[in-house]
Amino acid sequence: MTATMSPATPLTGQMIIAGVPVRGTGAEIRGFDPAAGQPLDPAYRYGDSRDVDAACAAAADAFGAYRATTSEQRALFLETIADNIAAITETLVARAVAESGLPVARLTGEVGRTTGQLRLFAEVLREGSWTGARIDPALPDRSPLPRPDIRQRSIPLGPVAVFSASNFPLAFSVAGGDTASALAAGCPVVVKGHDAHPGTSELVARAISDAVTATGMPAGTFSLLFGYGPELGVTLVTDPRIKAVGFTGSRSGGMALVAAAAARPEPIPVYAEMSSINPVILLDGALAGRGAELGAAFVGSLTMGSGQFCTNPGLVVAVDGPGLDTFVAAATEALAASPATPMLTPQIARNYATGVQTLTQTAQVIGRGESGQRETDCRAALFTTDARSFLAADELQAEVFGASSLIVRCADIDEMHAVVAGLEGQLTATVHADDSDLDTARELLPLLELKVGRILFGGWPTGVEVCHAMVHGGPSPATSDSRTTSVGARAIERYLRPVCYQNVPESLLPSAIADGNPDHLWRRIDGRLTQD
Amino acid sequence: MTATMSPATPLTGQMIIAGVPVRGTGAEIRGFDPAAGQPLDPAYRYGDSRDVDAACAAAADAFGAYRATTSEQRALFLETIADNIAAITETLVARAVAESGLPVARLTGEVGRTTGQLRLFAEVLREGSWTGARIDPALPDRSPLPRPDIRQRSIPLGPVAVFSASNFPLAFSVAGGDTASALAAGCPVVVKGHDAHPGTSELVARAISDAVTATGMPAGTFSLLFGYGPELGVTLVTDPRIKAVGFTGSRSGGMALVAAAAARPEPIPVYAEMSSINPVILLDGALAGRGAELGAAFVGSLTMGSGQFCTNPGLVVAVDGPGLDTFVAAATEALAASPATPMLTPQIARNYATGVQTLTQTAQVIGRGESGQRETDCRAALFTTDARSFLAADELQAEVFGASSLIVRCADIDEMHAVVAGLEGQLTATVHADDSDLDTARELLPLLELKVGRILFGGWPTGVEVCHAMVHGGPSPATSDSRTTSVGARAIERYLRPVCYQNVPESLLPSAIADGNPDHLWRRIDGRLTQD
Repeated sequence: MTATMSPATPLTGQMIIAGVPVRGTGAEIRGFDPAAGQPLDPAYRYGDSRDVDAACAAAADAFGAYRATTSEQRALFLETIADNIAAITETLVARAVAESGLPVARLTGEVGRTTGQLRLFAEVLREGSWTGARIDPALPDRSPLPRPDIRQRSIPLGPVAVFSASNFPLAFSVAGGDTASALAAGCPVVVKGHDAHPGTSELVARAISDAVTATGMPAGTFSLLFGYGPELGVTLVTDPRIKAVGFTGSRSGGMALVAAAAARPEPIPVYAEMSSINPVILLDGALAGRGAELGAAFVGSLTMGSGQFCTNPGLVVAVDGPGLDTFVAAATEALAASPATPMLTPQIARNYATGVQTLTQTAQVIGRGESGQRETDCRAALFTTDARSFLAADELQAEVFGASSLIVRCADIDEMHAVVAGLEGQLTATVHADDSDLDTARELLPLLELKVGRILFGGWPTGVEVCHAMVHGGPSPATSDSRTTSVGARAIERYLRPVCYQNVPESLLPSAIADGNPDHLWRRIDGRLTQD
Repeated sequence: MTATMSPATPLTGQMIIAGVPVRGTGAEIRGFDPAAGQPLDPAYRYGDSRDVDAACAAAADAFGAYRATTSEQRALFLETIADNIAAITETLVARAVAESGLPVARLTGEVGRTTGQLRLFAEVLREGSWTGARIDPALPDRSPLPRPDIRQRSIPLGPVAVFSASNFPLAFSVAGGDTASALAAGCPVVVKGHDAHPGTSELVARAISDAVTATGMPAGTFSLLFGYGPELGVTLVTDPRIKAVGFTGSRSGGMALVAAAAARPEPIPVYAEMSSINPVILLDGALAGRGAELGAAFVGSLTMGSGQFCTNPGLVVAVDGPGLDTFVAAATEALAASPATPMLTPQIARNYATGVQTLTQTAQVIGRGESGQRETDCRAALFTTDARSFLAADELQAEVFGASSLIVRCADIDEMHAVVAGLEGQLTATVHADDSDLDTARELLPLLELKVGRILFGGWPTGVEVCHAMVHGGPSPATSDSRTTSVGARAIERYLRPVCYQNVPESLLPSAIADGNPDHLWRRIDGRLTQD
């Protein structure tokens, strides 16, 4: 890193390839302040296929040395990134607010979440079970054939391409969950920064690059590129040196990368987190007791951050009746008092308006938020339809990114079961149930398990805790691979694969599976967990 | 099950759909005795899309009740299948010998391996870690926001389609590894039996169906179909009720299923184990000390089972010199004395002959086995080339299914590194090293790790131990998904995905993640393993 890269230095408008600032030569992009309606300095430029080649070559070159680092060394690296990010919190939040229109408190929290994720993976590395260490000792006297000594550990897949999200400029962007888990696994990372927040991206990329230098990691461990997704993004995903992809964004964007990766001579895993309408199921007891309270709280979850969450509650399912009427009345009242808030970009605001307009053709509008004057303003929208109409119209399940939700009125519990059974895959399902609803909830639970990655009771889906047991994932089209999570400790598993070592001489064995357990790991010996 | 299905009853020539014998209406197929050159009774007929529909409907119908069974219930089910298979060992081996031409000893061993796999998964179920139970308890006093109670467990993906292998009529067929691991995970299974051994398939399917009945599992938990892969196989993989696929076979067949699954509206995982030439690396010290011994032993591994193993050693890499000359002389001598042995089917024998013929055009023939009279006979073949030619000709890496191998002579260690770096993904790599070779081996190890699923020292790759630490998998094109194994305890993970439960009332929680640990599992509490 050169001295010009310190956080105190003004933004340079450059990408960073293996520690070196590189000015793109393609189309110019700028951050855009959606609250002020103003483009921001400095200008950035898209990179091209030569930049992809340089970043991938550096990542491939770094991979051998990077994956040979110890868990402790990578834990320190991740913590140094977290420290570097925390040290520039004020600068970072100010820039992210300007580029996203999201509130200061939210983005300050997101800095904490981002550094928390990095520190969680440092903890996961030190705990050591990520190595998947297993040993089946030799059985030289077994009849009819002796058993050889067989050991297993996990190794990183190789360089990973990460695509930043629009809606989490920090926690799902340059140093977000995908980057943190891939770096933890031992994979160099090439990030495609999001056009909506290039300045935030540059600041975070510097924080990572400085940590690469400070902890002595190979320079190619990290690069940040900008570029047009269908061009530079596809070039990146199809580069033979890239071995896995993390993506958070639209269904069409995610599926395009899935298709590109599948068409490679060597197909690779793509973890695309795409589209979810996050059904909220209101059961009768809860509605009867708390209908008004739930209606107001629902609008709070719906409109938070202009509804720009993957876990935004875009669908409400309930059995028709006075409880639901109370909920709807409270929700429409709260909605009417909801101010218009800026969306991340003018394009996202236009897509939102189109999505709402499309819904108007098949569902009934029952509430709108306040309208605004800015081109980026999101005017919240609430629709209703009956279960039969919902089941007949696939388009009613399409995600409208932003503060839009559809209430499906069911005639009875059987119809509610049919609606749940007819859902596409989702990130979350929320159930509001009182004690009198538990039998109903018990019958719904197995149906919901097959549809979602996370089931929550009595809250709202828009908070995603970063912890060991979280699943932020779910069946298609919520994600392209339901077997993993993008949030929480298990995300490291996405970037690993098992390797078996048979009769490998002791002096050549990796320490995770060496005799005497030098790394003090929990390991499976003949299938039994032990720290011996 | 009807009484007509007992193992004592002659083969009926029928498929089994959810416990009911069903006669296909399509093309007739018969087992074929490759040693005698004779077709076998009875005739079987291909099923059609209606049969696929019936099997998938039954599997989907069974899924809810089947996945609700306890680990102990499924363990008993798997053990009952194993008992039923063991009880008909003699009948089964006789039929499998007739249908495959493989020796009695090998197939008797394969019965043991098949029942052993089923019993291993019973053990995995009882140990319980397959549930992936994790609990992050609520932190109600956390500031600024309380943490909810968050728990995680794994659930089965849904009905699984399993495609039988030609070369393991028992261990990778109807009740083989894929079936055992999918049933263990809680997934109903629809098997497409292999055309080469329909009678063996029917016998094993009866054993499974009888166990379904005896242990009270839902009838749709298991079905056996016959059919033409590009038709019935693709119909099966694209049926929306199928949620994952296990396949062992050719690269073209596997990739066709991968493409069909990827093109579904809801893409699903395909675990295809396809193509591997299993490099054997001979280092100088080992060659100098044991060149002749290694040459003879190599031919034993090469010609075993007419070379029809996924792990057959189809490539030998060594530095040129007198040690390699000794190895080659011993190998060609042993090869010349190797009798011709029947291959599984006339088509496989024709493909083998074509593959050998193609290799003859780019590599030098240095040895052949004895020639035979039967149309299915495999005449073993050994080729050589130099490293530069090998690196220049992709076709030299194509798998020739059968007893064919290519020795690549390298000028020096650098060329050996280049050959290893130029390899496609493989199931295995074998290293023969003496003490004097350890430094050389240490440098090769990281290169090999990136290419293969299993690294073995001092043996031959053709034995695959069924145990906790085994990996039978590897980077593309060895398999379509390097993150898993098809042999060993971890195969159960292929058919699972995680689900998160947030603030779910205690009375609704699955027992794996209930308070008080009623299933006595190892679980992660706040990320730490404990049995509390």
